[in-house]
Amino acid sequence: MSTPLIDNLANWLNRLPGIGVKTAQRLAYHVLSMPEEDVRRLASALVDARENVKYCPRCGNFTEGELCAVCSDAKRDPTVVCVVRDARDVAFMERMREYRGLYHVLGGTLSPMDGVGPENIRIAPLLERVGNEGVKEVILATNPDVEGEATAAYIARLLKPTGVCVTRIAHGIPIGGNLEYVDEITLFKAIENRREV
Amino acid sequence: MSTPLIDNLANWLNRLPGIGVKTAQRLAYHVLSMPEEDVRRLASALVDARENVKYCPRCGNFTEGELCAVCSDAKRDPTVVCVVRDARDVAFMERMREYRGLYHVLGGTLSPMDGVGPENIRIAPLLERVGNEGVKEVILATNPDVEGEATAAYIARLLKPTGVCVTRIAHGIPIGGNLEYVDEITLFKAIENRREV
Repeated sequence: MSTPLIDNLANWLNRLPGIGVKTAQRLAYHVLSMPEEDVRRLASALVDARENVKYCPRCGNFTEGELCAVCSDAKRDPTVVCVVRDARDVAFMERMREYRGLYHVLGGTLSPMDGVGPENIRIAPLLERVGNEGVKEVILATNPDVEGEATAAYIARLLKPTGVCVTRIAHGIPIGGNLEYVDEITLFKAIENRREV
Repeated sequence: MSTPLIDNLANWLNRLPGIGVKTAQRLAYHVLSMPEEDVRRLASALVDARENVKYCPRCGNFTEGELCAVCSDAKRDPTVVCVVRDARDVAFMERMREYRGLYHVLGGTLSPMDGVGPENIRIAPLLERVGNEGVKEVILATNPDVEGEATAAYIARLLKPTGVCVTRIAHGIPIGGNLEYVDEITLFKAIENRREV
């Protein structure tokens, strides 16, 4: 039978995204069977990450020191800046290992319904960077959803007068995808952005 | 982009059952966005549960004090003992709120292939309880799988000479179940154990 401490642990685990009541209970029981030292290390990993992972003052990416790993890498091209919504998006972009420019994390997307206006996300610091850091191209890589598109359009309009080249990531059929399973809007975008071969 | 502390956290989360690499990363990022105080309380919940939840010296159920909540409840009937595999099975049995007897947790099931013999699970303490505690009925509630059935049969054979009443939980169609989706063995058991209405 459960004890108050097991219930307490299950309740806390249940508050994590994607962890339902049953999964939380199962995980709580599993924790009881783990070596005590491992449980302590898991607990430390939680607190250490939360306390010591900060945001890069320049681009907003995760960092444990001052500038993040991308900003402090002298081999990266500082004239290209890729704008993303969250710091975790930087990790997704870096997975392709091809992009050699820098990043700018907005920390959200414009969403008037949720009260998120231009002053609530890091748009002003982006304009400042474009003005001061010799940026030649800004790649808008916000998600292709309503908020992401609106945010990209808003930033593009602000940046146009500065003369910087503003680009948007391409929409189309995913590699390995199948026409049958691609939604109509993506298909329309894929036709619209067709290229001569 | 990920930092060493984020990767460390994701690796530890990934070691939990049912938490894959992607889920672990998603959870790690979520932890970074949680209030620091909540992360500390989650970490404490882990360590507190692991360090302070013990096994009841009488029945093997989870407890935070001496005897567990069931054993120390004077309203329970000490003449009936339900034998289950794990301490977590007690929680599952207690959910039905109908059973008023006590429990005995084996801490495993017989499994010669895995080197688990009668001396590796709490069979001797069960025999001792039956001999000393005035037990009138032992309900064998191990799982209806190969090991569970073998363990139940083994214990039944040991208990028979003591004259105690030994019963096995019933097999049959789950309530709300559909004949179409019930496996043949369960169906066979359901026919075999049919009752006059």
